[in-house]
Amino acid sequence: MNTPSSLESLIEALRCLPGVGPKSAQRMAYYLLQHNRSGAQRLAESLQLALGALRHCQRCNTFTESEICSRCLSHKRDGSLLCVVETPVDMNMLEQTHAYAGLYYVLMGRVSPLDGIGAGELHLERLLARACDGVVREVIIATNYTNEGEATAHYLSELLRSRGVSVSRIARGVPVGGELEYVDAGTLAQALRERRPLVG
Amino acid sequence: MNTPSSLESLIEALRCLPGVGPKSAQRMAYYLLQHNRSGAQRLAESLQLALGALRHCQRCNTFTESEICSRCLSHKRDGSLLCVVETPVDMNMLEQTHAYAGLYYVLMGRVSPLDGIGAGELHLERLLARACDGVVREVIIATNYTNEGEATAHYLSELLRSRGVSVSRIARGVPVGGELEYVDAGTLAQALRERRPLVG
Ligand SMILES: [Zn+2]
Ligand SMILES: [Zn+2]
Repeated sequence: MNTPSSLESLIEALRCLPGVGPKSAQRMAYYLLQHNRSGAQRLAESLQLALGALRHCQRCNTFTESEICSRCLSHKRDGSLLCVVETPVDMNMLEQTHAYAGLYYVLMGRVSPLDGIGAGELHLERLLARACDGVVREVIIATNYTNEGEATAHYLSELLRSRGVSVSRIARGVPVGGELEYVDAGTLAQALRERRPLVG
Repeated sequence: MNTPSSLESLIEALRCLPGVGPKSAQRMAYYLLQHNRSGAQRLAESLQLALGALRHCQRCNTFTESEICSRCLSHKRDGSLLCVVETPVDMNMLEQTHAYAGLYYVLMGRVSPLDGIGAGELHLERLLARACDGVVREVIIATNYTNEGEATAHYLSELLRSRGVSVSRIARGVPVGGELEYVDAGTLAQALRERRPLVG
């Protein structure tokens, strides 16, 4: 009876955020209403704007406001190298090393049997078309060195090599069990330089 | 150059949430865009709705969609008892005990010198007017037993008693079901000092 419905809806809606349970959602709602209404207003508008504006780049699959993102359109990038990452964050991490001038393909996920995500869910047709377009000479697989990232790398390398594509894997300079997002730029740069051909 | 501006704005806007730093904000933004666009849409709408609909109850100061909230309007509540709490969550906790049938006043904060929140920031005029309206016979202070809650209780009791209002404080002691072995010494010392005679 005593929680207004608009407040209840807000608390419920905040739970769509990853890692936010009922207690945090309640705390967030009260905090916004009491202490940061302008921030809440900005958040509502930014969500609407982002949902309306952002789509997947037709070439690299990352989020972009255009058909093809600015990186894919750049003439400064080496189109013969294609680096496959799990997420846009991973792509940003690799960019920050300044050790790579090729292009990317962002999977927006990983093979994760426990979460019911098989290879079919990753929609790899565009990646395959890219890799076999005659411009790409090497696909560098830069998925995480977690179990799921490794399974994804294994699946991709089988798939690509069966089509005659040359495939490499970033070096295991990345700590075993580690995620790219939390590795320093120097280590990542080293891992890029020391990539090794995958031999079946 | 490579993060679209609507994505950057969203990541920035998510940082208005308490406890959300740059890394979490980024993770949340990508998660929403990739995996829960309908949740993000609902969140945007709920924020707008809540900001538009919710205001402070003119009597108890909690969030409500009307001028005066349903609890304050209820004829089943005992208007001679006024319980002062820090937040709407605390009020909900007390309601869940079913041990209190009086009314409330929600401070929406506490005296916290370290955060630059003095008594002046709490806007206590409405509380004072309530407490001195001739209906209220006892003000029960139910702020937290933290340093800040205690400072707030102290300040309020001085203020109210100087106006001839009868003031009490919720008891402090061993939790119900608690074992002495696992209660901290400070709590135990208070429980001893505040011991009550057993009657009957
Ligand atoms: Zn692109
Ligand atoms: Zn009220």
